[in-house]
Amino acid sequence: LQVARMTASLDFWFEFASTYSYPAAMRIAEVAAARGIALRWRPFLLGPIFKTQGWDNSPFNLYPVKGRYMWRDLERICADLSLPFTRPALFPQNTILASRVALVGLARDWGEGFCRAVYTAEFDEGRNIGEPEQIADVLTSLGQDAQAIMAEAQSDQIKAALRAQTDEAARLGIFGAPSFVCADGELFWGNDRLDAALDWALK
Amino acid sequence: LQVARMTASLDFWFEFASTYSYPAAMRIAEVAAARGIALRWRPFLLGPIFKTQGWDNSPFNLYPVKGRYMWRDLERICADLSLPFTRPALFPQNTILASRVALVGLARDWGEGFCRAVYTAEFDEGRNIGEPEQIADVLTSLGQDAQAIMAEAQSDQIKAALRAQTDEAARLGIFGAPSFVCADGELFWGNDRLDAALDWALK
Repeated sequence: LQVARMTASLDFWFEFASTYSYPAAMRIAEVAAARGIALRWRPFLLGPIFKTQGWDNSPFNLYPVKGRYMWRDLERICADLSLPFTRPALFPQNTILASRVALVGLARDWGEGFCRAVYTAEFDEGRNIGEPEQIADVLTSLGQDAQAIMAEAQSDQIKAALRAQTDEAARLGIFGAPSFVCADGELFWGNDRLDAALDWALK
Repeated sequence: LQVARMTASLDFWFEFASTYSYPAAMRIAEVAAARGIALRWRPFLLGPIFKTQGWDNSPFNLYPVKGRYMWRDLERICADLSLPFTRPALFPQNTILASRVALVGLARDWGEGFCRAVYTAEFDEGRNIGEPEQIADVLTSLGQDAQAIMAEAQSDQIKAALRAQTDEAARLGIFGAPSFVCADGELFWGNDRLDAALDWALK
């Protein structure tokens, strides 16, 4: 029975700089598993996608009124989920290295844990995950060989894989994060659409 | 008991051109009443607020990828609510007259019904509510004297009232519609935040 139910699947597209990706990333594994939905974690970069819309910064910085609302809204959402939250001093952060390391880890067995640990560092502990030493620290705390993995993450193969993943996000019509894409291509955008995406995946 | 429970209140800020305001407007009276929350309907214009952000059109037109997603998302939301939905040929529509008439009606007893009828005309029947004859038709169908009310709606007093209402929205930090503002000033943006706003209003 469990095997049969695991045929439903969902792609979870996230960006480490994305504030609303934080509550989604911290709970999605649990809620998807509870409903028997297989999850694929898909880190990508929003920067190149924002650039095609003419933005060289987060819209939350470009439109400060919207940004002020977002920080308050995120604070409320995290409180409702009993998720710790600290607004980081720097926003948005450089997420290229974290995304590349995530691709390395997701091909092995420590990727999801790494992703959650990066979000915790950024939005709970208020650290700057754009600094390589912070990524190294996260890897070490997970019992991984930080230097070897970070070297691998900067290989041409992984760099190309992240570019390809970002290109695929754009092709799927993704313009923000988190986004959820069902097996039939149905797209849901936003932490507040996670339940709707899970419902759709089971249709 | 009923009187005591009615002390909780919520301001419902909406714009007739706003797609996500449609599902909110069609269900808010019922869900607020079910929880004993007194509702104030507050039409305003998004155009002047968008202008301060440098937009001369709806962001759903300025950013077509986001626009495509919105129409699909709205279709799904309306289906979930069993709410009829037809994408209007023109978007966004000119909502100045409808908003002024709404202000006239909300000061009497037919305002809420008028607002719902305008949304139905626009997003169910696919009509252009920017045309005065459509607004006249809606008023007539509600048993009102269309010509007298439309003349009143174009008075200096009502024009000023709509400007003041839009200015107040901007002062409250409103940047999109629908928005919900609790008695303590707490702001919620989006149809998907209606339940959270009702929860907050009862705190």
